Amino acid sequence: MQLRTGAASVVRTGLGLTQSRCAVQSLTVVPLERRIRQSKALYHNTKKNDSAWAAAVSVAGNIVNNAVTKAIKGTDGLPTIDPLRLVAGEMKFLTGNIRKLLGSGHPSLDRAAKYYTQAEGKHVRPLIVLLMSRATALCPKAPQRQQSTLQASAAIDTSISPLNILSDFNPSDATPVSIPADTDILPSQRRLAEITELIHTASLLHDDVIDHSESRRGAPSANLEFGNKMAVLAGDFLLGRASVALARLRHAEVVELLATVIANLVEGEFMQLKNTARDEKNPKWSEETLTYYLQKTYLKTASLISKSCRASALLGGADAATVDAAYLYGKNLGLAFQLVDDMLDYTRSEKELGKPAGADLELGLATAPLLFAWKTMPELGPLVGRKFEKEGDAARARELVLQSNGIEQTRALAQDYAEKAIEAISGFPDSEAKDGLIEMAVKTLKRNK
Amino acid sequence: MQLRTGAASVVRTGLGLTQSRCAVQSLTVVPLERRIRQSKALYHNTKKNDSAWAAAVSVAGNIVNNAVTKAIKGTDGLPTIDPLRLVAGEMKFLTGNIRKLLGSGHPSLDRAAKYYTQAEGKHVRPLIVLLMSRATALCPKAPQRQQSTLQASAAIDTSISPLNILSDFNPSDATPVSIPADTDILPSQRRLAEITELIHTASLLHDDVIDHSESRRGAPSANLEFGNKMAVLAGDFLLGRASVALARLRHAEVVELLATVIANLVEGEFMQLKNTARDEKNPKWSEETLTYYLQKTYLKTASLISKSCRASALLGGADAATVDAAYLYGKNLGLAFQLVDDMLDYTRSEKELGKPAGADLELGLATAPLLFAWKTMPELGPLVGRKFEKEGDAARARELVLQSNGIEQTRALAQDYAEKAIEAISGFPDSEAKDGLIEMAVKTLKRNK
Repeated sequence: MQLRTGAASVVRTGLGLTQSRCAVQSLTVVPLERRIRQSKALYHNTKKNDSAWAAAVSVAGNIVNNAVTKAIKGTDGLPTIDPLRLVAGEMKFLTGNIRKLLGSGHPSLDRAAKYYTQAEGKHVRPLIVLLMSRATALCPKAPQRQQSTLQASAAIDTSISPLNILSDFNPSDATPVSIPADTDILPSQRRLAEITELIHTASLLHDDVIDHSESRRGAPSANLEFGNKMAVLAGDFLLGRASVALARLRHAEVVELLATVIANLVEGEFMQLKNTARDEKNPKWSEETLTYYLQKTYLKTASLISKSCRASALLGGADAATVDAAYLYGKNLGLAFQLVDDMLDYTRSEKELGKPAGADLELGLATAPLLFAWKTMPELGPLVGRKFEKEGDAARARELVLQSNGIEQTRALAQDYAEKAIEAISGFPDSEAKDGLIEMAVKTLKRNK
Repeated sequence: MQLRTGAASVVRTGLGLTQSRCAVQSLTVVPLERRIRQSKALYHNTKKNDSAWAAAVSVAGNIVNNAVTKAIKGTDGLPTIDPLRLVAGEMKFLTGNIRKLLGSGHPSLDRAAKYYTQAEGKHVRPLIVLLMSRATALCPKAPQRQQSTLQASAAIDTSISPLNILSDFNPSDATPVSIPADTDILPSQRRLAEITELIHTASLLHDDVIDHSESRRGAPSANLEFGNKMAVLAGDFLLGRASVALARLRHAEVVELLATVIANLVEGEFMQLKNTARDEKNPKWSEETLTYYLQKTYLKTASLISKSCRASALLGGADAATVDAAYLYGKNLGLAFQLVDDMLDYTRSEKELGKPAGADLELGLATAPLLFAWKTMPELGPLVGRKFEKEGDAARARELVLQSNGIEQTRALAQDYAEKAIEAISGFPDSEAKDGLIEMAVKTLKRNK
């Protein structure tokens, strides 16, 4: 199968630092200087001579020869695996189960809270959690964790305190719509998938208020439809119900991971209010600019994906190496995902995206393509500093970025992260779910909306 | 001591349904028909002939003879106990510890997140949690709960996952400023007190955005000072850090209780957007109106106090009867507290309150004094329906309420709840902390701002 071959070739050229010890295959690991440079931490304390920037630039020239590119080109003509098909039985009932978690005695609170569950979202986060749950089911277990895992799965729909004490009325029938009997996904992992979507949706509700967004998934945004007041409340309600569902997993480590995501999302959104750490009026390009952007991107996008991957492995009772590998997969995939998102904002039309194109510049945001362009085009500095607010700023910045190699560099960096994601789980035993995770990384680069 | 006598006399006239089994004193319990009526659930499925309204009216005539009134009048001239003094060592460092929980690498996020910790708030919620922790320390323990309790107290400052995975940077020194060595309050209970204040403050931040409030504690509101955007983000950040701190208590039941508070607060705030369940344009007075108001009040005010009292007893490893008693104390105190708050909005001037008086009517809210007045003054219906929006509505409603017995009825109902709070903990062994809790109930009725 195409992807298996592709994935293996990525691994063989890799340093393997991030490999899980749950390896079944024996791999020839060839350490390469290039890979070492890239493997070091890309943000927090990035040093001048061993930096995110250097790593990003260095990968740009190597695109044609690597596995992900081959997979994208589909050179051998074999059909690719569909990750969604692998967990279709679970995904089919996802939205229904999420809506059940959001029931209340108030029809208009219901409407606002469930609004963003109506349009068919991509559900990328739950999909990844479910695939990771299946893929790690085959990995070695940490014996001491088994008990808490079993406990977590047994009681996720049962409150710990009496219901009359909790006073959190939910008229929805608590029994999940359907539990496929032949699956290796635990009820707690399925609930985790639902929780990730709740947290993500809560952040969309609040972000749309903060950004004064007018549309989302081809429909009016919640703040436009219900007003800021209801959108803030609905977001809080989703966070509240997500926290309650999380508590009922009865797994302190998992609760801490997902609770931290909430703080991370805020810090990321906060960082995004500025384009540079010091928010100068006339900033000069520096490597710290990219570091700041990547840290923001981790917090705002990769934190939820990485921590829910980690939590999925923990709930399955996986050993420490598998837990770490799951985290690294999610972190790198999340970074790749956002880089592609930021690239598409420059390369695709509004019609293709299903949302306004060039929206980032309109919002005043300097994302990866612009940051790469800025290095060779210092005239972008003042525009970044004033957040593209002057008339014509956004159009001019867009033009300069498209003239530069910013798009290409962004794509190369995204590809590098996607490779790292695949590399992280290279030691997992062969399975369709593992192939699905690899395909998720490949699709992240291929997607055009 | 005055309060001990007062408390005992309240109990002797009570039904004792809510008494903790951790009773040390042997009490003569005299069931009274009046008390039975009041003891039944005041909201959710209230029946016509056994209703909140009937109970509220029935207590109005009995004010002069009961214990709380005696305590307020201070007839024997003895000094009352100061609840704050009993946990002064803990309270002294509360704000400092809360600010430590809110550290981040971003000065302007820090400023917004810590803004409401600057002005000296009353810190009612942490004070109650600390008093409850001390009072329940003397109660019988639930043996099977001991282990999780010890675990909770040992590690509250230690993350469960590695810090580099969590990526939730907090530059504050993690060690608490000071831990009084001679206290019977556990570190986990102290942290719980801090968490209650974080959740309360987060709800203030979001409520002020929703209500377009302009001032808070004699200073500009956070939304006015930093803008809606930052106020929403700061509130979310507080919720995130509160959830992380909560997870580190490593006590699933406590996590569920406090997570549920977040959902409760939203539901309460949502209910407050309407004055009646069906939000009619020209509503008629009915008992359901009061039921709706009391349910809203539980969710918005009493939920946090009651559930944190319960959590405090759980963290201390108390037995089931003590845990239930702690909850009932908090629930009844919370209801009394909000009723008095709603009464003061009619009876005190802006100068006395330190915030705009009559603010509730300006916000369109029909609170207890108005609901009681409305029963005998049907002309208030249309004003309630249009949320006092027409010019002169608020002034006219205020005048009608002051002419009615609405204030008196509200005070009587608050007093009834305060008595129930005292009754709930009547079985606790004698202690200064228990006296402090009783005094908190008495002070709730005496306070004038």
